[in-house]
Amino acid sequence: MIILGIDPGLRTTGFGVIHKQGSKLRYIASGTIKSGEGDLPTRLKVILDGVGQVARTYGPDCAAIEQVFVNVNPQSTLLLGQARGAAICALVTAELSVAEYSPTQIKQAVVGTGRAVKAQMQDMVARLLQLPGLPGTDAADALGIAICHAHSRETLTLIAGGTSAATASSPLAGLRLRRGRLVG
Amino acid sequence: MIILGIDPGLRTTGFGVIHKQGSKLRYIASGTIKSGEGDLPTRLKVILDGVGQVARTYGPDCAAIEQVFVNVNPQSTLLLGQARGAAICALVTAELSVAEYSPTQIKQAVVGTGRAVKAQMQDMVARLLQLPGLPGTDAADALGIAICHAHSRETLTLIAGGTSAATASSPLAGLRLRRGRLVG
Repeated sequence: MIILGIDPGLRTTGFGVIHKQGSKLRYIASGTIKSGEGDLPTRLKVILDGVGQVARTYGPDCAAIEQVFVNVNPQSTLLLGQARGAAICALVTAELSVAEYSPTQIKQAVVGTGRAVKAQMQDMVARLLQLPGLPGTDAADALGIAICHAHSRETLTLIAGGTSAATASSPLAGLRLRRGRLVG
Repeated sequence: MIILGIDPGLRTTGFGVIHKQGSKLRYIASGTIKSGEGDLPTRLKVILDGVGQVARTYGPDCAAIEQVFVNVNPQSTLLLGQARGAAICALVTAELSVAEYSPTQIKQAVVGTGRAVKAQMQDMVARLLQLPGLPGTDAADALGIAICHAHSRETLTLIAGGTSAATASSPLAGLRLRRGRLVG
């Protein structure tokens, strides 16, 4: 299964693609889409086309995107919302299911604490995917989102038929079971 | 020239299509796209597909969309931003240029005052386009956006070569010249 993670932003949208086979995760690709200096419709089109091209290039089976939160600057919140809308449009146009995770869920799943800083996310993503060096912060966040989704699906599969308590909206319920092995 | 106006919203996106020949405006179509009760990616896809279908059906030459403003509820601002992003993605995918106008600019252009209420917008849109009845508020707003853009382009054409002071970002500079005739 190939999973595409997206870290949305108006200026820079991060993407990360990983392969999951059983409990093994393998790095495929990561990078950023820069929307440039055009007007808003032009920049949204860059995001739409860029995420669409990533989806066509790597043929993911599913996608996950970070939930964004209200900025102290409401105008920035509005711009970020539009950028995130463009990224989601690209994903649904590629007929991908789109899961959403909060920053806290992603940090918890990858680093083990919801209060992790960016450097910890980069470090853990590099260790979990056995990267030769640290990914950039936007790409690391996007890879972290994909890893979070990989764990969530794994958990859901493991407990399938057992209980209906774990759903896509509460992916952390089973994550702690697996973090020890993945981190250690 | 066929102009498509879009009034973006997460729940309801209004659209209005008008034909402009010289100084004459003619109604072509208007309506709303309801995003339904699905999750956010599903609702954004409804908006993307719906606006895209309107563009394919009526073949506009250009589009205009209302600028949205920060809501008292920041979460609503974020959702509205994503809906607007989806609508803009549909327009740029249809290779349409997308102009943006503030609510005040639109009310000023259609009703003659930036403080107009919704009923005045409905009434003026019906008069300007010689409609047999009042359009719904979302459709009226979308038609109003298209009318605002029609006036702006008209003005730009009229003064073409005269001065570079009027640009797409300041469409009101010349609107007052024409409002009297259109309203009267």
